[in-house]
Parts: sequence; C-alpha cells; structure tokens
Amino acid sequence: MLKVALLGAGRIGLVHAKSMTATTASRVVAVADVNMQAARDLADRIGAQARSVEDILADTDIEAVLIATSTDTHSDLITRATAAGKAVLCEKPVDLSLERALATLAAAEATGCPVMIGFNRRFDPNFAALKAAFDDGQIGAGELLSITSFDPAPPPVDYIASSGGLFRDMMIHDFDMACWLFGGPPARITAQGASLVDPAIGAAGDVDTAVVTMVWDDGRLAVVKNSRRAGYGYDQRIEILGSGGLLSASNVLENTVQKITTAGAVSAKPLHFFLERYMRAYEDEWAAFLTAVTTGAPMPVTLREGVAALACAEAATRSLHGGASVAITPDMLG
Amino acid sequence: MLKVALLGAGRIGLVHAKSMTATTASRVVAVADVNMQAARDLADRIGAQARSVEDILADTDIEAVLIATSTDTHSDLITRATAAGKAVLCEKPVDLSLERALATLAAAEATGCPVMIGFNRRFDPNFAALKAAFDDGQIGAGELLSITSFDPAPPPVDYIASSGGLFRDMMIHDFDMACWLFGGPPARITAQGASLVDPAIGAAGDVDTAVVTMVWDDGRLAVVKNSRRAGYGYDQRIEILGSGGLLSASNVLENTVQKITTAGAVSAKPLHFFLERYMRAYEDEWAAFLTAVTTGAPMPVTLREGVAALACAEAATRSLHGGASVAITPDMLG
Amino acid sequence: MLKVALLGAGRIGLVHAKSMTATTASRVVAVADVNMQAARDLADRIGAQARSVEDILADTDIEAVLIATSTDTHSDLITRATAAGKAVLCEKPVDLSLERALATLAAAEATGCPVMIGFNRRFDPNFAALKAAFDDGQIGAGELLSITSFDPAPPPVDYIASSGGLFRDMMIHDFDMACWLFGGPPARITAQGASLVDPAIGAAGDVDTAVVTMVWDDGRLAVVKNSRRAGYGYDQRIEILGSGGLLSASNVLENTVQKITTAGAVSAKPLHFFLERYMRAYEDEWAAFLTAVTTGAPMPVTLREGVAALACAEAATRSLHGGASVAITPDMLG
Amino acid sequence: MLKVALLGAGRIGLVHAKSMTATTASRVVAVADVNMQAARDLADRIGAQARSVEDILADTDIEAVLIATSTDTHSDLITRATAAGKAVLCEKPVDLSLERALATLAAAEATGCPVMIGFNRRFDPNFAALKAAFDDGQIGAGELLSITSFDPAPPPVDYIASSGGLFRDMMIHDFDMACWLFGGPPARITAQGASLVDPAIGAAGDVDTAVVTMVWDDGRLAVVKNSRRAGYGYDQRIEILGSGGLLSASNVLENTVQKITTAGAVSAKPLHFFLERYMRAYEDEWAAFLTAVTTGAPMPVTLREGVAALACAEAATRSLHGGASVAITPDMLG
Repeated sequence: MLKVALLGAGRIGLVHAKSMTATTASRVVAVADVNMQAARDLADRIGAQARSVEDILADTDIEAVLIATSTDTHSDLITRATAAGKAVLCEKPVDLSLERALATLAAAEATGCPVMIGFNRRFDPNFAALKAAFDDGQIGAGELLSITSFDPAPPPVDYIASSGGLFRDMMIHDFDMACWLFGGPPARITAQGASLVDPAIGAAGDVDTAVVTMVWDDGRLAVVKNSRRAGYGYDQRIEILGSGGLLSASNVLENTVQKITTAGAVSAKPLHFFLERYMRAYEDEWAAFLTAVTTGAPMPVTLREGVAALACAEAATRSLHGGASVAITPDMLG
Repeated sequence: MLKVALLGAGRIGLVHAKSMTATTASRVVAVADVNMQAARDLADRIGAQARSVEDILADTDIEAVLIATSTDTHSDLITRATAAGKAVLCEKPVDLSLERALATLAAAEATGCPVMIGFNRRFDPNFAALKAAFDDGQIGAGELLSITSFDPAPPPVDYIASSGGLFRDMMIHDFDMACWLFGGPPARITAQGASLVDPAIGAAGDVDTAVVTMVWDDGRLAVVKNSRRAGYGYDQRIEILGSGGLLSASNVLENTVQKITTAGAVSAKPLHFFLERYMRAYEDEWAAFLTAVTTGAPMPVTLREGVAALACAEAATRSLHGGASVAITPDMLG
Repeated sequence: MLKVALLGAGRIGLVHAKSMTATTASRVVAVADVNMQAARDLADRIGAQARSVEDILADTDIEAVLIATSTDTHSDLITRATAAGKAVLCEKPVDLSLERALATLAAAEATGCPVMIGFNRRFDPNFAALKAAFDDGQIGAGELLSITSFDPAPPPVDYIASSGGLFRDMMIHDFDMACWLFGGPPARITAQGASLVDPAIGAAGDVDTAVVTMVWDDGRLAVVKNSRRAGYGYDQRIEILGSGGLLSASNVLENTVQKITTAGAVSAKPLHFFLERYMRAYEDEWAAFLTAVTTGAPMPVTLREGVAALACAEAATRSLHGGASVAITPDMLG
Repeated sequence: MLKVALLGAGRIGLVHAKSMTATTASRVVAVADVNMQAARDLADRIGAQARSVEDILADTDIEAVLIATSTDTHSDLITRATAAGKAVLCEKPVDLSLERALATLAAAEATGCPVMIGFNRRFDPNFAALKAAFDDGQIGAGELLSITSFDPAPPPVDYIASSGGLFRDMMIHDFDMACWLFGGPPARITAQGASLVDPAIGAAGDVDTAVVTMVWDDGRLAVVKNSRRAGYGYDQRIEILGSGGLLSASNVLENTVQKITTAGAVSAKPLHFFLERYMRAYEDEWAAFLTAVTTGAPMPVTLREGVAALACAEAATRSLHGGASVAITPDMLG
C-alpha cells in the first residue's frame, strides 16, 4: 500500500480525496493546505494528518503526492516534489505561463521522477472506449475530429479574471483530448470566440463561446467547440470521422426514462454536474497513477503532454487576439 | 401493362387507387362501388370508367381486381372474381365469419386463380427488413415474439359495432404478422382484454385494450398488445428474442429534430396516421401483387394465410369470453 | 449510527456487505453464516465479528439484521429476528411456500417490528424515475403495463431444481414491480411458458421462457416476459401505456460509443451483469431501509408486499400447469 | 395550372422532372437541353415537347422555367429568362464567379421577375422543423451553429476540376443553411482544409475535407464540416446551441431495425444517396416556388441569398489559400 499525501483541500482536493480513499492500493497519510483548518478538517475525516508541504516533502515514507492546489502553485510544487523524489499527480493545467511550464518540465525531467497531469477525461469509460476502438483501427485513419464541450453554467466572474482565459482553463481539456486521440500536438491552431453568455466575461477580457480549429502536419483536422453555458447540463461529446467510418461518444443521461405524449417524446437531459459525469474517471485516473508508480510503467498522462496542451491554449489565445492561425513550434513543446 | 379494376371507392379504395396509379406496371381501367357517384368521381380522376361489378368480372380484358369493398362482401367477391378467372388482391379480413372464409378458400382454390390478402404491414420497409434479418438467422432460432400495435384514436362506436370486434378488425394484422414471422399459425391462443378507453366500446360488446398470447407446438411464444387509443400516434413495434439475440423494429418518427432544455430532451412522436406510416407499404404491396400475377410466382400473402389470421382472431375471441386458452385446430385452417 | 448484522456471507451477502459498508449511517458489527469460515473472512474484511445467529439475535445492541441466507431459511429468520425485536431487511423471495410466508407475515406483524423485503429494482434510479413520473400523472391513468426481464444466461441446472421455479425465483421481481406500479396485486393471472433455452431446465420441471398476463379488477392489464438467456446482456425494461401517453425505462448500456460504418451503426449492449446494473439500487435500498428504521416511517417494501409477489408467483405456477387463468384470492394475500 | 418549362435534362434535370410532374399545380410543357436527344427522351416520357431555349423563352404561354443546366450557363439563362418575363427557379450555385453572379443579380432585379435559387435542403422536413422551432424561440437566442455535411463518396476527379472547388460546389449548401438559420451572411469566414480522401483531388487543386468557421457581427459563431467521403452514407446534421438550450436535426436512417447480440447493438446507417434523403425536399421546393409565383409572395430562397452563399464560398476559398480570416464586405453581397 502506497503512502501518499494530498496537497490542497479545496473543491478539487475534496474530489480527489474521495477517489484516493476509495481504493486500498494507497493510503492518504497527510494533507496540506494554505488554509490549515481546511487541511485539518479533511485530514480528520479520512484518518490522515494535517502537515505542512515542507514536512510532507521531507518525509521519505511518503512516496507520492497529488497536487490539487491553486494553479499558480503547480509549477513550484511539481519542481519541489520531484526534487524530493516523489511521484507526482498534478491537476491541470501545469501552469498559466507556458514559459514557466517549460522550465518545470526541464526541472522535473532532470530528476527522473514520474509526473502525471490530471486530464481526468481520458479515464471516462466512454471516451476510453472511443479511444480504444479508434486505436484498434475500427474506422481506419482519422481525418476529422470534433469535440463538443459545454459547461452547464459559467463560473463566477471573479474566477474568470484569474483563470488564464477560456483556452487555458476550460478548453485545455479538449486540447489534451485532441492531442491524445490524434497522437500528438497539431501544427497550427486557429481560434474564434465571443462573449455571448455574460457581458461581464467579455469585460474581464475573456470569451465564453469559442470555436478552435487544429490542423496536423498531414492535413488531419480537429474542431473544438466550447461554451460556458449550455444550461441543460454538462455536454461532453466527441466524434471522429475516419477513412472507414464515424466513431462517436455521446452524453451520459440522467436516466433512461422516456415519456411520449401528444407534446412529443421527452427523454432525460445529460448529467448536469462534472462530478456526476466524471467521478468514475477520477477513480480510474488515481488507480492508473498508482499502477504506473508501483510498476514503473510510463505515466498515462505525462508532464510533457500537459505542456503540449498548454502550448495549444497559448496558440489559441494568440490566434483569437491576432486573427490569424498560429503555429505550434518545437520550442513551445520543450 | 396489366389492366385492372378497383372494386370499392371508399376510404381504403382511395388509398389503393393512389398506389395503383403510381406504377406503370398496371392500368386501372374500371372502378365499381355501390355508391355510383363515388365510383364515377374516382374513375374520372384516374382516367378509368365507372362500371358495375358484373360488367367488370365479365370483361376478359381485365386480368386482376383489387377488392376494397366492405368486409361483408369480401367472400362473395373473391368467389365470383376467381370464378371469372381474375387474379385477386383483397383487403383484410377475408370475412368476419371463419366458416364463410373457409368456404371461400375452398371455392377460390378450386379455380386455381391466385388470391392475395392485403396484409400491408408485411410490406413496410422496417418490418420487411426485420423479417429478412430474422430469416437470415441473424439472431438464431426465434423464441419470444412481441408485437405492439396501438392506434392513435378509436374509430366511431358505430364502426365498432359492425367491425367483428378488436381481434377480427385490428389485431388480425398482428396475427398475420406473428404467423408470417414464426412460419405458420400457433397451436393455442389466450386472450385478455378490457374496455378502458371508451365505455361505449365496452357497451357495444367489444374491448379496446387487449393482450393475446400465442403458443406454437414447439413452445415458441408470442405476445400481442393492442390499444385503440395511444393518443401520441400510431405505435407499431415488433421485437423478437432469439437464441442468439434480439431483433426489433421501432416506430417511424415525424422528424429527426431534438430539443434539449432544462425541461429535458424532446424528440418527435411516432407518425400519427396509418397512411403516413404505411403508404409506402401499400405501394410495395401492389407492386408485389403485380409481380406475382405476371410471373406466376406464388402470392406473397395467400388466401390460406388470410384464413389462418382469421382463425387466430376467432380463437382469441372465444378465449376472451371463455377465460381459457383455445386451440387452433386443423379444421379452422382449411 | 445504527449497529446492524448481516446474516449470510454468500454471493448476495457479499453484495449487501458492499452497500452496508459504503454508508456511515450504519455499522456492520456482526456477520453470521452456516459456513463459519465465510463469515470470518467477510467479518475480517469489514471490521465486524463472526458470530452465530443466536448470539446476534440476543445482542440488544444490534438493532437491525439483513437476511441474505438461503431462501429456505428466510421465514424462520424473519420470525426469530422480529421476535427478538430487530428491524429486518430480508432478500426476496419471502419463501417458496406461500403458506409458510403467510404464517411468517402473521407472526412478524404480531411483533410490530418493521420488515422490508429486498426488491432492489424499485430502487434502480431509472425505474424509480419512471414510477415517480407515473404517480405524478404524467401519462394519465395506467392501462397496459409491459415488463421485459431477461437474464444474460441461465443459472446452473442444480440451482433451478431448488429455485422454486421461474415464477418464484426470477419473475417474482417483476410481479412486485407490477404490483408496485399498479398499486396492488391483480385479480387474475395467466401464464404460458416453455423450455426453449436448455432442455435440462425442462427436464427439471421448469420453464426458461415465459409470458404472464395480469388483470386487475378494473380491467387494467400487465404482461411480463421472462427469459433465462438473452445472451447479449441483462435486459430490463418497463413500459406503461396510460390514457395520456406512454412511459418507458430502457436498458442501461455499457457506454455511449457508436461506430457507423458500411456495416451499420453499432452501439453498446446493455450492461451484462445484475450487479453492474443494480449496484446503485442495492445502495439506495439499504439507505431507504436505514431511513425508515431510524425515522419510524413505513418500510418502503413491506413484508405484506413480499407475500403478494409470492402469491402472484403461486398463481402463475398453477396457471402454467392448469392452462387457465388463476384468481388471486384474499386468502392468498394474508 | 401553371405552364412551365424545364431547361436541362441531365441528372439533376431528371430529379426535378419527377417533382414537377408529381403535382397538378403545374404542367411541364417544354424541355430543353444542349443534348436534343436527352430533351426528346425526357419530353416524351412526361408528355412535354422538346424545344430550344430561345423558343421556350419566346413562348408567352410559359410562365416559369426551372434551370437545371450546367453551372456555367446559370447566369446567362437567369438573365435571359427574367428579361423574357419568366419566373425562374435556378439550381445552385448561381455561378462560379461572384462577379458574374452580382451582375446577374442586378440584371434580374431590374426586370422585377421573381427568381428562386434551388437550395433544396431548406425544404427537408427535418431541417424545416428545426428552423421553425428555432424561429419560434424554443432555445432562445442562437449562439453557436454546427453543420455536418458529408457525402458518401467523392465525385469523379474530372468533375472536381470544373466544380469551382469544395466551397462553391458542396459547402455552398451549408453556407446557405447557416445564413438562413442565422438571418443573413456572417461578417468573417475562416477556412481550413486538406486532401485526405483522394490525392487526385489535392492534385486538382481542391480539398476534400474542410472546416469553416463563420462569425457574425454580434459574435455568433457557426462551424461547418465537410467531407467528400463518409463511406457509411449521406451524413447531414445540424445543431444550434442557444441561450436556452440545444436544437438538433440528426440523420434519416435506412430503417428502424435494431439487432442486439454479443457483438453489440446494430442499427441502420443513414440513407446513402442524396435523392433518398432529399426527394421530398425537391417536391416541397417546387411546390413552394409555384405557390410564390401564383400568389406573388416573396420567393422562399431569393437570388440575393444565392449570391450571399456564393460570397461565403468565395471568402472561404480565399481564406483557405491565404491562411487568415476573410471579411464578407457589402460589395460582395450586391
């Protein structure tokens, strides 16, 4: 049983605490948070100790840490934790600054410690089945990938301001998904976007609705659609046109009930909340991390991949403001 | 081009007139109806002549007749038309009296003239595809057949009174479908039913909601559900459980539009009217009849099969009133 | 936190152990089983003690027991546990003998201790949503209920022999579902069945494929279809035709992936195993039991309802052998 | 009954001949084609006369013409027919040259004769229902429109060379659809594309797979995906995200049959051929044209709208080659 620590006891930290304690393959022995009370509350609840980050990193009994702190601390904590010899699972994104993320990548790789980035959607059973079928060649060569990713409702405008913008905060999941499905980052990215949902988001310098096109060197295309407000639920769909057919993964619905009356046939909406949709994915993500740590197998999502997704977000942000497509150059990938 | 006559210019006659004139393989040269004005109106519209039945049967240029008159005239017209050497396509049911239908069968078979009964649903492209997949062995041996057949709204109570009852008037389609799919009539039939839709239907001695179970000699089972009033449309579904899987044909919907809001996902209802759903089936039925007449191939739905469906209806009626299951004996099949 | 004991550490006992330990509202302090080693193994794993049934029933600290032992012990254990003042959740069926079940009902009701029967499907989120919509009047008055319930594969023939037959062992779930949805037991039941899946099942005196029709006093109808072998998965569907429309709950599929090629559009099968489909239902069932015990609210599934389902199974068994429909009389319901 | 002439007896002319003769509201009295034999064959078959274009335009009995000739003759024929006082229904696109199309627009508008462009998809019952629901405000204000439009197989490379390219030949339908749904042409267009299906298409200077993004002045976005080869059928879908929900129209399938086995659940593919999918649309298009001609109502698809779609195609072509987004300026719209 692996002894592990959880850094961060906020919203996403609590999510991870749930999957970390659902397995017997690891034991959470320590929790850290800038808010010591939050750390203590969570630690008490799961039979761990509230400790400082320094303490945790110095404890050689602790083999791995999960970083679920605020984004601006990710790079520093990855660097320190790998320097201390820990295996690391860090929440997305690696950083809001591509430059800093590249420095973190260099530092972490120098230590040889394994780092995984928490792109939880790869572990969603539906998307995982789509990927498996695609890699199995069931629709031949991929040609045109479409990702629809709409949130049910926008976050508070305060959050928007420090989020790094739609591309680094929200679409980064879809960039990773596209790179994962198509085997690496694209050659160029073009972005269009607008603030249609809430003018306050536009006033904060961000967009809430966007379409991004990715082109690979061999001509393959991907298009990602994001909206901060679908209203009816969490809309998460993927579709790949290949030389031999179409593969898609549609939404998970609230239930299977249908009512047919003179007003039409009414079925359930997509699940509304990301936790309902992705709780299983968080569990499988943690299990995959533990397996990789204990067997020494490559991380299922590498830090390098986390940087590639950030490079896409960087390119999309530049394209949105400049109006033209932006190349993903080798120096952006580390 | 086959010269043909249409006997009956009422509602169902008009339906047939449409498919009979949609093909160039036949030409409707004569129309008869007890209502001479109706015959003349229709004849004028399709470039035919209004003539008496006697006249039509005596005209050796006319090779085939389609009988779409009221049910109580079917037996007589089949008998006279085959005696006159015509090929016959007669609307369902053959008769309301099994005894009379058996006599008609004997008389018609003695003439050697081909007779087809108009079980149009066999020609619905969805049910035809289901049958083809089943006969192809795609789900192995059939074990349990389910037919759902709900009308959108009950007919006038006047009609009910002379209809022969739910089993002879409405479920007879489903009896034919079951016999067709499972390769012949069942050994026993059990019926339950009630008047839940309209008390006037019950007062007229009929049921408007019924469940009938059919058992074949080898143990295979079928269950048919009928309702005179689904409200939301014309609900026509078939499902077969086989040793290797499940085959089903679901409803044809009004369109493919879906709306998802916080109130759920709303799709279109099934098509509401039997003509919307089955117009194509009527066309294919007529084409199949013409092909059989001109090539001498066996009729796609024989008079004998029409009698078998009526025997099922007879057994179901008796079971409903007697409470026990009723055997389909050889003398009921002719 | 309620202290509870689990009687039975076999297959279904392990299922319940999982949901019993997933909540903090109860604590399993004792496990009993005729196989002491099985009891010890499970007890060790969940931090409980392996004890005898006598011991458990005598321990006044234990407020409730879950009976997951073999069916032939249910009546005796319900009687003894209620006599000892425990709240009881007992697996279905109450008994294979209606007579014994009625005696148990009388004895248990005399103690005033609450008894719940484990009809887990009522707690499936899909069926629960269907029931809620129906009770809410969304399709008006119920008229015709259809339940499809197919297992993926038959149990060992050994099991069949002591199972009480298809109706008491498998369709009892559907009888309860029908009585629950339509607000009480039907007036009459008619059964047809055959051994189509495995001749050994027929040789053991049982059927593996069956259609049962239920008729309520007011004419409402239900039809239940069972097969021991659907092959493609666990097929669990419900459909209600009401005066104002149709309500249905369809299967839960393995995932939402679809592949479209020239060979057609391929989607996932229904979940294959009852635990995949109903694990959540077992959890909600246990939670509902705990809530009722602690609040004193009526049991969500009463022992009386468990007896009613058994009375339906008894009537279906008699109908299958006798050929006619069988009435559910008041003396069968206790 | 309107006397009309059909100009063009090639593939698409034959399609129109079918819908033009299916109604009694018009009578095709003349057919013209550069291939006189083709004109005669078709004319004979539908009871019309083969005549020259000059002759037809000079015949004052003929009130309307349908232009189904090769694209390079559209502008000239629209100009001459309106000059001759005829109402015109012309196949898409107006022209391959935006400049020529603008001149034609000016000339035709000067005559006051009504001209309709044959964007048949607007008349597809599914897309028409989507449009009606959207205009009815059922999902609030439109924000993000997605159009998927894949052909089953690419046309001959010969055809590609003279087609004007993917955007003018194929995506022009989708440009019209987007402008129709969002109430006018967008402000800017960005195109990405590649030749992934057939290198010969790339060698001919065209792309066979493309993603185009359209942005309206108020920030609304649309994305159109085209592929010349979906393989599995004719894939035609539309989806609109609005402030209040999502509206979509999915594909029309070959039939409603589903087969579930251990290999999964197999349903029918989308209809394969554009005529199967859109025959009804061609009929409704012709009927809508006749209604507008006889009532004097505005044309359901104006020549001006045909020019706007061409302007979008022009912008997309320029964007594809230049790499940046291209504005739709007023001078491009006439």
